[in-house]
Amino acid sequence: MKLPVSTEWLLHCAASLAQLEPGATASAAQLADYYDLPAPYLAKQLQSLVKAGVLAATTGPRGGFRLARAATEVTLLQIVEAVDGASAPYECREIRRQGRGALPPEQCQETCVIAAKMAEAHEAWRGSLAGVTLADIIASIPEWVPARTRSLLTAQPR
Amino acid sequence: MKLPVSTEWLLHCAASLAQLEPGATASAAQLADYYDLPAPYLAKQLQSLVKAGVLAATTGPRGGFRLARAATEVTLLQIVEAVDGASAPYECREIRRQGRGALPPEQCQETCVIAAKMAEAHEAWRGSLAGVTLADIIASIPEWVPARTRSLLTAQPR
Repeated sequence: MKLPVSTEWLLHCAASLAQLEPGATASAAQLADYYDLPAPYLAKQLQSLVKAGVLAATTGPRGGFRLARAATEVTLLQIVEAVDGASAPYECREIRRQGRGALPPEQCQETCVIAAKMAEAHEAWRGSLAGVTLADIIASIPEWVPARTRSLLTAQPR
Repeated sequence: MKLPVSTEWLLHCAASLAQLEPGATASAAQLADYYDLPAPYLAKQLQSLVKAGVLAATTGPRGGFRLARAATEVTLLQIVEAVDGASAPYECREIRRQGRGALPPEQCQETCVIAAKMAEAHEAWRGSLAGVTLADIIASIPEWVPARTRSLLTAQPR
């Protein structure tokens, strides 16, 4: 059970964009430079955050990415699920219905109790990540960091 | 982020073994027949539950698998982590330390706040699964099921 390596990239990029002044943007090249990441692959992944409504992309000489919503409205869950999809890690293939022990269909109208407990655990994970916003992350970093982030992130050409 | 397909197999096999009379066993072949699963691969996976201390294996003509502990002492987490390992799905590769924005080492003595929040979510998932025992599962299935399980599971030759 592994999240893609790019999960870390996108969480950090979104947290960095949350430190920009309102309306300011950073390009994929600037973000790639800031974290020493492969720019083409990062650009593709940033588009998945646009598609998920987490980021907005603008074009033109000053174009780039910014948060599509306030940092208080972007949760870690939205970012993680934009990168990895929203499907649960446990897949119930209904083995209770097969083999010598197959339960008759009328006994399988309710969700398998094991699948239900696995789904509860996934919801606990989702709930934990849905309870943390980018604003929470920014609030927990040292006060001097955002000014440094803004300066270094936009120091390179777009 | 996916758990192996065999996670369902092992959760169900362990729940079935929890329905046997004390001291009774079922072989890998019987469990495979009961759920129509590939016996050699299932046998290998059952060994991982033995290694994890969830099941005990006995040899001889009446040999097979049984729970190594009371059903009240076996959690879904133990089974899932025996199958998939206990590593967390989010891997922090410390990208905060690399690229133009690299933080100096003295600023990285504490765990990255993003990694910490991802770890909290994983602990929420683990806590949810650690809170459900095989005894809880058995308690939530219809009363007539365990007798049927015992009968069908041991109907085939070992």
